[in-house]
Amino acid sequence: MLEQVLRSIREPDQEARRKARERQNQLTKPPGSLGRLEELSVQLAGIQRTPRPKVGRKAILTMAGDHGVVAEGVSAYPQEVTAQMVRNFLSGGAAVNVLAAHVGARVVVVDLGVAADLSGLAGLPLASAAGTSGPRLLLRKVGPGTRNLARGPAMSREEALRSLEAGIEVLAEEAERGLDIVGLGEMGIGNTTPAAAITAVMTGTPVPQVTGRGTGLDDDGLVRKVQAIEAALAANRPDPRDALGVLAAVGGFEIGGLAGAMLAAAARSIPVVVDGFICASAALIACGLKPGVREYLIASHQSVEVGHLAILRHLRLQPIFNLDLRLGEGTGAALGIGLVEAAARILEEMATFGQAGVSNA
Amino acid sequence: MLEQVLRSIREPDQEARRKARERQNQLTKPPGSLGRLEELSVQLAGIQRTPRPKVGRKAILTMAGDHGVVAEGVSAYPQEVTAQMVRNFLSGGAAVNVLAAHVGARVVVVDLGVAADLSGLAGLPLASAAGTSGPRLLLRKVGPGTRNLARGPAMSREEALRSLEAGIEVLAEEAERGLDIVGLGEMGIGNTTPAAAITAVMTGTPVPQVTGRGTGLDDDGLVRKVQAIEAALAANRPDPRDALGVLAAVGGFEIGGLAGAMLAAAARSIPVVVDGFICASAALIACGLKPGVREYLIASHQSVEVGHLAILRHLRLQPIFNLDLRLGEGTGAALGIGLVEAAARILEEMATFGQAGVSNA
Repeated sequence: MLEQVLRSIREPDQEARRKARERQNQLTKPPGSLGRLEELSVQLAGIQRTPRPKVGRKAILTMAGDHGVVAEGVSAYPQEVTAQMVRNFLSGGAAVNVLAAHVGARVVVVDLGVAADLSGLAGLPLASAAGTSGPRLLLRKVGPGTRNLARGPAMSREEALRSLEAGIEVLAEEAERGLDIVGLGEMGIGNTTPAAAITAVMTGTPVPQVTGRGTGLDDDGLVRKVQAIEAALAANRPDPRDALGVLAAVGGFEIGGLAGAMLAAAARSIPVVVDGFICASAALIACGLKPGVREYLIASHQSVEVGHLAILRHLRLQPIFNLDLRLGEGTGAALGIGLVEAAARILEEMATFGQAGVSNA
Repeated sequence: MLEQVLRSIREPDQEARRKARERQNQLTKPPGSLGRLEELSVQLAGIQRTPRPKVGRKAILTMAGDHGVVAEGVSAYPQEVTAQMVRNFLSGGAAVNVLAAHVGARVVVVDLGVAADLSGLAGLPLASAAGTSGPRLLLRKVGPGTRNLARGPAMSREEALRSLEAGIEVLAEEAERGLDIVGLGEMGIGNTTPAAAITAVMTGTPVPQVTGRGTGLDDDGLVRKVQAIEAALAANRPDPRDALGVLAAVGGFEIGGLAGAMLAAAARSIPVVVDGFICASAALIACGLKPGVREYLIASHQSVEVGHLAILRHLRLQPIFNLDLRLGEGTGAALGIGLVEAAARILEEMATFGQAGVSNA
């Protein structure tokens, strides 16, 4: 399944991009005066392969998983918060629910590897956010949390593949329901540790330069976190040319799911709005498997988490905004979708100089 | 009228700010992890004098005026574009219409000084943007464009006062219609020239450092523009301690209207989302008349226009985003309102740790 998806990813449509840019230059504004919004509309045109892209049907996929490395004391919060937050997502009380509702996106929560049995939550009648269908839970558990990556591989190579394929399947299902754009987010206590490990390996940056405080680690915790990642790299010796191997050695089930969703979205010409640091680490895996997927990614924001910048530079992605966010869940991706939709609406709805009878320069 | 408004402007409510911050720390996220959104919600609470501020009823006021200084060749577009764009605003085809509709804000266009008779447009049945009432035109013309500020005062001191009072009246009328937040924007061919002149005077920055290419001036045009502003400062010798005098000497009617609207909004505890460079120059006038108005201002974006940064620094305003915009109209303010509303919704709609049964750190 993975091979087929990788083969289906094409270059964005250059002709659609050209026509979108041409239209931008005919709209009643000085050419280029809407800056990033104009660029985003052109990128969107290339991805969706049409000069008039649409951002009507929107979803945030929030992928959840637990991490054995929390045994090393790398998180300020206890592991049970992952499952508790999944329940919070499903009852509509989390930040991602509020921000997804604000931009009119549905929320789909995916259990890739939470260390608790959530099967009872999948069939519940769920709270409905204003203007959107209520959040849903998809059960795609690869395992009940990864193993401790500081002591050996976080998962087997086969589990890494299964997490990628779970993400591919989820994206395919959501595409069937109607999807013009997807925002990706995550929940997983401890997951800035695998994200930092992946970043160190894939970008070749020293561990201390990509390791931050996550949800609010103190100085001692930060030292433990750097030591755990250094130990992980020593124990696993991951090879950056083998992205699947890196995911298995130092990744997470939700990170694999996110990477799979990116690949599947690119294969289906669906733009992907990437959230913060953990999502971006999944982009490193996805781009490691297929560099061309980068063209389908839109970085929503630049996170406070220090390793994020290393990834953005490595992938040459320019974030849309910087609001000092460090929450995850898909919160930045939701806000990003709002701005990408604004860009698409500018291209679609503005009058041209000719239509409006306005003199051009 | 102006004196009464200046007297009514109070400090924001510190108790409401404190309660809003306390609630932010109880919501199901690591404290501070929503960065600027949390700060914005606290600022909003102080301005609206309630721990649970609302951003439901939104308006963009786009103030229009012409400028005698266009005779110096300081704009890439001909003067008639100001009136043409007002018509475009009223038929819903401009960028501000699209972005205001995107965030659910009504558009109110105000003729403060367009060099054309627009009275026939005020009563027209107007196009209606999705989800909002159609744009309206208010006639508050102080004069048919300013005089050439390179050769003498742009307007009389009495006209400057009338432009401020027109802005005060318009804001008061819109407040009567229901207004939780206001975004300010402008249209006026040539108006980056008075904005740069005001910036040079009020911030004490050399003219070349605050003068940009506006809608797309070439190198020769940029030289003419700097010369026109230098000539204006030499001819008028404006005193930065006399903000009304600066407005009269080198301002514009729409800039006075914007400054008046800022003062009136502050007096009514309504937050003001400021657009780009020209709006920010109006903020210099407003803050010159009453420094405390600064607390009521939210800078939406950092413009490409070079003088904008000098103003943001002088007023210690941190823009929410930087999308390389340089259009004006209120386009950045509209996008900013969308993000401020997101901030208010986070504070209002998220569950607390207690409500959601999530373990706190």
